[in-house]
Parts: sequence; structure tokens; C-alpha cells
Amino acid sequence: MKVSVIGLGRAGLPLAAVVADSGFEVVGVDLDERKCEMINRGINPIPEEAGLDELIKKHAGKNLIATPRYEDAADCNVFVVIVPLVVDENYNPDFRILEDAFRNVGGILKRGDLVALETTVPPMTTEIMAKGWLEEESGLKLGDFYLAYSPERIMTGYSISRLKEFPKVVGGVNKESGIKAFETYKKFIPNLHLVSSARVAEFIKLIEGCYRDVNIALANELFKIASELNIDFYEAREYANHEYCHIHLPSTGVGGHCIPVYPWFLIKEMEKKGKFSHIELLRTARKLNDEMINYWAEKIVLECMKINKPLNKVKICIKGITFRKGVKELYHSRNFALAKLLVEKGLNTFVYDEMLGREEVEKLGLKWIKPNEADVVFDTFELKTQVLRR
Amino acid sequence: MKVSVIGLGRAGLPLAAVVADSGFEVVGVDLDERKCEMINRGINPIPEEAGLDELIKKHAGKNLIATPRYEDAADCNVFVVIVPLVVDENYNPDFRILEDAFRNVGGILKRGDLVALETTVPPMTTEIMAKGWLEEESGLKLGDFYLAYSPERIMTGYSISRLKEFPKVVGGVNKESGIKAFETYKKFIPNLHLVSSARVAEFIKLIEGCYRDVNIALANELFKIASELNIDFYEAREYANHEYCHIHLPSTGVGGHCIPVYPWFLIKEMEKKGKFSHIELLRTARKLNDEMINYWAEKIVLECMKINKPLNKVKICIKGITFRKGVKELYHSRNFALAKLLVEKGLNTFVYDEMLGREEVEKLGLKWIKPNEADVVFDTFELKTQVLRR
Repeated sequence: MKVSVIGLGRAGLPLAAVVADSGFEVVGVDLDERKCEMINRGINPIPEEAGLDELIKKHAGKNLIATPRYEDAADCNVFVVIVPLVVDENYNPDFRILEDAFRNVGGILKRGDLVALETTVPPMTTEIMAKGWLEEESGLKLGDFYLAYSPERIMTGYSISRLKEFPKVVGGVNKESGIKAFETYKKFIPNLHLVSSARVAEFIKLIEGCYRDVNIALANELFKIASELNIDFYEAREYANHEYCHIHLPSTGVGGHCIPVYPWFLIKEMEKKGKFSHIELLRTARKLNDEMINYWAEKIVLECMKINKPLNKVKICIKGITFRKGVKELYHSRNFALAKLLVEKGLNTFVYDEMLGREEVEKLGLKWIKPNEADVVFDTFELKTQVLRR
Repeated sequence: MKVSVIGLGRAGLPLAAVVADSGFEVVGVDLDERKCEMINRGINPIPEEAGLDELIKKHAGKNLIATPRYEDAADCNVFVVIVPLVVDENYNPDFRILEDAFRNVGGILKRGDLVALETTVPPMTTEIMAKGWLEEESGLKLGDFYLAYSPERIMTGYSISRLKEFPKVVGGVNKESGIKAFETYKKFIPNLHLVSSARVAEFIKLIEGCYRDVNIALANELFKIASELNIDFYEAREYANHEYCHIHLPSTGVGGHCIPVYPWFLIKEMEKKGKFSHIELLRTARKLNDEMINYWAEKIVLECMKINKPLNKVKICIKGITFRKGVKELYHSRNFALAKLLVEKGLNTFVYDEMLGREEVEKLGLKWIKPNEADVVFDTFELKTQVLRR
């Protein structure tokens, strides 16, 4: 068995390293030539990923080879596709990267090969789109090859331990594909579960995201109510939570590539079918989370009004604009959106972020400041406003 | 220390029994004279409550006395109020039972006594209403007596073990009351936590209910989506759930005295303050759960259409009309509501429930049937429709 991992990003590279560490030859394909060179020289491009350095040093250039060329993976018999699925501003997925990956795999696909998709996708992407691309390019028919879906469940920073311990599911587009994929993945994923179809496996990943999004929305709503009643939400949450109660943490909303996107895959699928009554809670949660920046903007303005200066002269520092603390990523960051909203309102808004330098902030069209030089600092991760000058 | 428990219902009696079993004299007050007599003779009026029989036999008529007269509790120094708070059809609480209990306690209240409320109530009921009633009737002022809130967290059938093991919180309307209540409760509740106020303790109970209601709504919504995509929701749920994901079970909605009521306490409080944007998710979840009967009615009709009879002649059996399996309670039962909805639609609807006899069903204005005599059976707890005749 020789495995090709298509896409050596935050999810793909840890997987490739774990497969290599399980004793298999791995060919990682990534269009970024420089990244491939780095990996082949034993340099880990994701140093914040615990345990990855070690695996890269041990296997890179030996049984883990990175390459920008699909033909280098031609002798592989397992292809794991784990490339990004980007969405446009209306959350419509842009399948071009995915299609390109599958068509390229199709070009080198042989009888008996297994293709597995790990990217989170709208329902039925594997059985309809991926199958179509592979069949078109390879001239083979499903049955000649196997096709399955197994959602990545990594969490940036903990990917290696997740792959080694966390439950992972796999489902085939037909029965044989499910069995084949289960037997294959079992060789490098210890905690593996076979589900009845690729479609179920796709759905599993999406509903996990919906659970998160709705529960963050609930935490945000309860936080607002608590604040109105002069109740410390965090104290109430601490004692409300137990074995059967899992109230999440409030926030400025939900950012990143995952949670804010996945509910839309189900929402749009239902809208296509005219089933608007099937997505009321998912839509409300999305709206509520996205609107949290308005709530916080109002809170910040109320603090600014305590300062003896015209409102538009008060120096506001938004501390933390990445979507998550410690992750240098602005995609759908509500913290970044909050800073932009305050600027739009005509407030004298500055930004500070420990992951971003002054120049990087300025390139985003925002003003940079050290927090202690501002009049009011809003910490987006702690949800705390501090008035430094009256 | 001598303890009076006001209200010997499903929550009050197990508590009274546990306090008695902890070695304290207990006077239980309940207006139902016959129930008091039963208890004093050692007969448990809630036989389905595991472990209660034993405690009643051991303590009733000895250190646990039940009485309909408040004056019999005059020498108690701890009063725990745990009477029902009923709501009208618009979920507005009717405080009369609660007020009556507090005014009666006020009538026998002495300096240094502790009064604790356990009934789930709208925020600030303890600090405003309960305090007012006690002060008016006793002529004492808070400070002369102590007042606290400690929400019951029992679950019918498991109340004794819940009291002995489950975390319980208590908060005072002032600091001294909190400490006094904590020290008192600690003598019979092992897993006890003091929170900063009665208001926080009230809120804790309400948000637990909101978590449940919203997550049941989410399960119902995801169930509808899964069904639309021909996915087995239960299979997906089984593998989606893990340490960080707790997708609940779908249902015909949410019934009983608790979960469907508590979100309204927060919704109405926010509406009074004009904060309509603070309750969007709670309202959507309530609506979604209440509307599930329409979804199921449609599914049942679709099954009926498979039968070779005029639609209004098909014998439909709704199996299970209590709000929860094994609990003889119809309050806000969506299963009962579903049966009535089908009748209203002009369908030939019958009912069967293992907790209710034919006469009890007929008294409710519904027709009774043995499931195997119907053409179509819908099991409200299993959410399964069975066609028995074509």
C-alpha cells in the first residue's frame, strides 16, 4: 500500500505524517512548490502543530515525499483528498480547487485504487461530484475503483493527537467502497468507525459544526440576557453546566473556515428544495452570531462616553483581530469585522494583535496602536472593555 | 434544627424524605389532607420514585410528619418552599400558590429562621416577591430572617439519587442568607455549591432549561434535514456525538411542567424591558418544538394515503399521549396535542397509552383503541409510523 495525500495544509500534512509514521510510503501532493521543498528538507511549515516537527524530521525525504506533481503519485493505490473548499461572500462553495484535485487524481487512477475525500463538503458532494470527476478523467467506472468520505476532525494545534485518539468515521459511496476504506484507514487510524454511506459521513461532520454554531449562539444570547439582569454569566454558566448541560462560551461571533461555513451547506441545500421551515434555528443562530459585533460595538461606545473627550476623538483599541486567539487567520474573523464596523461608524479605531505586526495591520487598512496608548481597550478574546484614561 | 418542607409533590416529598434520613425532624406541609394521611401511615404516594418507599417507611409518622396545617410547623427554623408555579396558556406565571405558601410561612416566621425557595421561578422572584410576602406577613425585616434560593434539580424517578449525588446550588438574597443557607443545606446535600446571589441561582436553573429546549429544537431541525436527505438521523447522531458534541434526540416537541415553560420566564422578562433582540434563539426554539406536531401530522397523513380506504376512514392510533414515556402527566404534552390536531383535521384518530385506561382516554374527549386494531399506528416516543393494514 502506497498512499497519496492531496493537499499538505493544516489538515493534510499532519495526516500525511501520521500515515508515514504508521510505516507506509506517502506521496504528498501540494501545488505550493516551496512548501514541498521545505517539507522534503525536513522543515515543518506548521511549527505550532504539536508533535509534527518530530514526524517531519523522521520521515520527510524518506517515506514521506512532498511534490507539486500528480504524476509522482502515479504508483500510489490510495488517494486522500484534503484540499480547501473555499466559499464566496454568500457562502456558496467554489468547487474549483476540489474539482482540480479530483480530476488530477482521475488522470492517474488505476483499477482497484481507493479515493477518499476528507474536506468538509455539502451533502452528496462525494457520491455525485467527486464520482463524476473521477469517472470522467479516468475512463473507469465506480466499482473499478473505490470512493469514500472520511471527514477530518483535527483541531489546529492538536491534529496529531486527534488522529491518534479521536473517533474518526468513514463511509463509502457504495458498500464495497465503505469496507475498502475502513480496512485501509484502520491501518493508520486506531479509533475508526464505518458508517453506512459517504452521505452519512458528510452529514456527521456538518451537524457537529451546527451543534457548535447553535450552542455558541445560545451562549451569546444568554450572555446578553444575563447582562441585562446584572448577572455574571460566567458564574451562572460554571454552575449550570454538568453531565447533561454544556453551555458554551460567549464571543464576538464565530469565525474561521469551519463553523460559520458548515451550517450554510445545509441551509442552502434545504433552500434549494424549498424547505425553508427546516432551517429556522440554523439561520437564527448564524444571524445571531454574526450580529454580535453590533452588540459589542454598542457596549464599547457606552464605555467611550465615560471619557471627557468628543466621542470621535476617543482612541479605541481593538485588541485581537484574528478569529481565534493564537491562530494567525482572519477568515470570517468577527473581531476583524468589529474593528471595521467601528471605523465605519466614524470612531477613532486602532488595532493591536499579538499575532500581527504594525505593518501587517496597516496593510489591512487599519491603524495600529499599543494598547496602553489607547483611551479604551476592548479585548475581543476576554470580552472585556478597559478604560485607561478619563 | 427542625425543617419544614412546604409542598409534598414530586420534588418536595423526596427532599423531605432525604432531610429526614439525614437525621433531622421534618414537618411536611401539603394542602392535600389525604396525601398527608397516606404519608403518615408510611404509604408512598409516588411509588415510581426509586428509593422513596424505603425512606417513607423508615421515617414517616416518626421524624417525618405530613400535615395540611402550617401551624404544625411553627417550631421549625428552616422552611423550604417547593410548591408548583403554574402558568396560564400564554406562559404567564400564576403566583397565587407560591404567594399563599410564603404568606403562610410569614405567619409563623421567627427571628433567625431561614426560608429557602426551590420552585423554578422567573428571575428576581426570591429577592422581590418572596421577600415582600414574608416581610408583610411576619412584620420582620430581611436580616431578622434569612432568605435564599436553591433550585430543585431532581428528575422524576431519580430524585433520591439526584439529591444525594448531583451538584446543587444555593444563593442568598444577601450575603448572610447565602452563608446561612449553604451551611444548612450542607447538612443534607453532599454536593452543594454557594453562588453569589439568589438571582444567579434562579438564572442557573432557567438556562439549564434553555439549553435543553434549544438543543432539542436543534435535534428536531437536524432530524428534518436528515429525513429530507434520506439520511438516518440516529446513525449520524451516534457518530457525531463525542466529548465536545452533544446532539440531543428528536421528538414531537417538548412537554411537561419544566422545559417548555422556563425559556418563557426569560423571554417575558426581556420583552418587558423591550429587549426583543435578546431572545431570538429562545423564541425560535420554542416555536420549532411546538410546531413539530404539524411535521408529524403530515408524515402520518402520508402513511395513511398508502391505505386503500377514504382518508377520513383510516383508523389512526396515536400510541403514547403523556409528555414522557412512563410518566402519567399530560401537561403541555405535545403527544396529546398531536392527537387533538389530527382529530381537528377530521381524521379518524384514536389513542392508546400504557399509562392510561380506556375511561381516562375517553374522559379526555378522545377515542381509545388497541394499537393492533388500527390501520396506522404512530408511536410518539419511538417516532415511528407503522401501517398494519393496506
